[in-house]
Amino acid sequence: MNGTAAAFVDADRLWQRHMALARHGARADGGVDRQALSAEERAAWHELIGWASALGLTASTDAAGNLFLRFNGARGDLPPVLSGSHLDSQPTGGKFDGAYGVLAALEAVEAIVASRTAMQRSIEIVAWMNEEGSRFIPGMTGSGAFTGAMNLEDVLAIRDAAGSSMADGLAKLHAEFAHLSHRPLGRPVAAYIEAHIEQGPILERERHEVGVVTGIQGKRTFRVTVRGEEAHAGTSLRRERKDALLAATRIVQALAVAMQDEEDIVRFTIGKLDVMPNAPSVVPARVVFSIDLRHVDSTLLRTFGDRIAGICNDHAAPCSVDVVELTTAMSLHFPEAMTTLIRDTARGLGIRAMDIYSAAGHDARFLHRVCPTGMIFVPCAKGISHSPRESAKAEDLAAGTRVLANTIVALANR
Amino acid sequence: MNGTAAAFVDADRLWQRHMALARHGARADGGVDRQALSAEERAAWHELIGWASALGLTASTDAAGNLFLRFNGARGDLPPVLSGSHLDSQPTGGKFDGAYGVLAALEAVEAIVASRTAMQRSIEIVAWMNEEGSRFIPGMTGSGAFTGAMNLEDVLAIRDAAGSSMADGLAKLHAEFAHLSHRPLGRPVAAYIEAHIEQGPILERERHEVGVVTGIQGKRTFRVTVRGEEAHAGTSLRRERKDALLAATRIVQALAVAMQDEEDIVRFTIGKLDVMPNAPSVVPARVVFSIDLRHVDSTLLRTFGDRIAGICNDHAAPCSVDVVELTTAMSLHFPEAMTTLIRDTARGLGIRAMDIYSAAGHDARFLHRVCPTGMIFVPCAKGISHSPRESAKAEDLAAGTRVLANTIVALANR
Repeated sequence: MNGTAAAFVDADRLWQRHMALARHGARADGGVDRQALSAEERAAWHELIGWASALGLTASTDAAGNLFLRFNGARGDLPPVLSGSHLDSQPTGGKFDGAYGVLAALEAVEAIVASRTAMQRSIEIVAWMNEEGSRFIPGMTGSGAFTGAMNLEDVLAIRDAAGSSMADGLAKLHAEFAHLSHRPLGRPVAAYIEAHIEQGPILERERHEVGVVTGIQGKRTFRVTVRGEEAHAGTSLRRERKDALLAATRIVQALAVAMQDEEDIVRFTIGKLDVMPNAPSVVPARVVFSIDLRHVDSTLLRTFGDRIAGICNDHAAPCSVDVVELTTAMSLHFPEAMTTLIRDTARGLGIRAMDIYSAAGHDARFLHRVCPTGMIFVPCAKGISHSPRESAKAEDLAAGTRVLANTIVALANR
Repeated sequence: MNGTAAAFVDADRLWQRHMALARHGARADGGVDRQALSAEERAAWHELIGWASALGLTASTDAAGNLFLRFNGARGDLPPVLSGSHLDSQPTGGKFDGAYGVLAALEAVEAIVASRTAMQRSIEIVAWMNEEGSRFIPGMTGSGAFTGAMNLEDVLAIRDAAGSSMADGLAKLHAEFAHLSHRPLGRPVAAYIEAHIEQGPILERERHEVGVVTGIQGKRTFRVTVRGEEAHAGTSLRRERKDALLAATRIVQALAVAMQDEEDIVRFTIGKLDVMPNAPSVVPARVVFSIDLRHVDSTLLRTFGDRIAGICNDHAAPCSVDVVELTTAMSLHFPEAMTTLIRDTARGLGIRAMDIYSAAGHDARFLHRVCPTGMIFVPCAKGISHSPRESAKAEDLAAGTRVLANTIVALANR
């Protein structure tokens, strides 16, 4: 491990910070509910800024609600190296998804400072706003607006189920953190590197400490609206009903069959479904549901996704159906220079690393559009995430952070 | 129409009161959202009590949140004749369901007072609490607790989706109406008669002004809980998923097929379905849905209903399922003495009446357990109810009220 920054990574401090951060939005079942722009997320900001201030870092934000914690290099005039992830969680999330990437970047900077390693470029730890897209749909709005992949006006107009907009939530956030300076969206970045739990079973099964992420699986999301006609459960004839829920369940079943592949590589999920008016003795007038479709092969992602609207139409009668595509993100591959750097860094530290493909989407997807980008995965128990049962080992989190620290040093001095 | 009470029914006043009451919970689409124990329902109470006070009636309530407006007869010591319905609506309800029965009873008393008809028994206009069962499930809790069909403790413990209990809502109601005296549940009633829109197309189609209701279709309701396992939409393998929504849609489809009869007499409705955690990129862990099953033939109602749990179990894999029956109400027939009285009264007034069976449930179901009970139906446009498009004609509402007024007089002097 020689005298590099990696040697100063403190596995216990890193673990304790995960536990401390998980108190913000803690669920009784051990999970975390810390959705974007919630009071819990703002509390996590306060805690994180406190740790960063003690290290001498400078906090700032931007119009999309991203949080930056800057460590100045000798050449503050050059574009910085960014590293981080997100602090928001699913409503029934865990302690590591997102939080690890932010805390690993903080720990890497702690280690760099302690090792007195000379740094040319500045380093910025970043917590992107609304990666999860559970309260405000779609997700990755912070990195989307930062990189120009999304229009800021569109992001501000997104509303949650209660009708509250991201603009409202951001105004509240910025008022609570009025002492932070605002940085422009789209400023130059030298490189971006994100650490994250794998959210899959491969590293654990293959007994590797670290995954060198070669790319991200493509994803298309849709919103399907089925319109029927409200009627009385006790009096209306079956033959005369236009039951939006019966039509929706027919559509869901037909889609589930059509989206099956023998190899089990297609990822097809209907995670959200809402019935209107949702009363036991009223025939449903309207059903709205989400579709989340992913595939590592962009050609197949296109083929499967393009069939969705037709299947919905074929099974909607006697109701009508409307399908809107919300996000389209084809599969991507990180630059070889980045994967090689991470792989070599792990090897130099004697850490067992393997190449791996990301099945989940990450903010790194958008950063990839504007700068050399890479990702480091660490194992999580049984591959479970987006669940209170999400878990990881302190030594694996530390191993990933050691690779991250030395990779950041290399990028910052390049 | 001779010099009877019926001659003093004022069609215009009755119509205007429907319009006035519909402002409490008015929806932009012309419908009414006035759920049980809401601020809107309390506002409707104030309006109704105001009209009744002007007539000299005395308002009172009880532990289940029912509202009584008493007109004293010469023999106040005898059990009174009750007539009314309910003021709560579905979230997307109309102006007439429930409201008509209460306003028709008020108009009947206005007419009786104006006609100076001598009355032996007292008359009480009643608005039963929570007939609809949309916010607090099941419904008909006011008449259920009054007649002993339901246990008051059980009713008080019912909670809405936000976790608020009926006990809380009733405390708020009773605090706002602290000047009303409280009457005991289960006090003797001489007879009960309820006017209501048909909620079906028959009277309109057959061109009759009034329906003499001979009975009420039986009903069984269930709550089905499907339990799967939360997982990440991008990483979890299809073969390893336990997707509660896919299992629920399979169950719903199987039930829909099994509950079909060639004659279209079975009424099978899944009106409410909730997904947990209901996030687009999380495989659903749990789905809870309602079943509302009705049939005029109690034997067939039993046969169809008894198949439900088995069908749910057959289609739940790889998830588990739990089926709870919430209400069991077999089909019932009102006493011939009541239907004959209503039929003869209509004939005496020259109003076209036909016998009809109620496909919907009503508070009259529970009153039937404790006293001679009858119902009067009036046509509604296209049979539509539980919908903002619910509509009825002023002259039909008045015709039903004329029959009601003279029937009440006959019952009160018996």
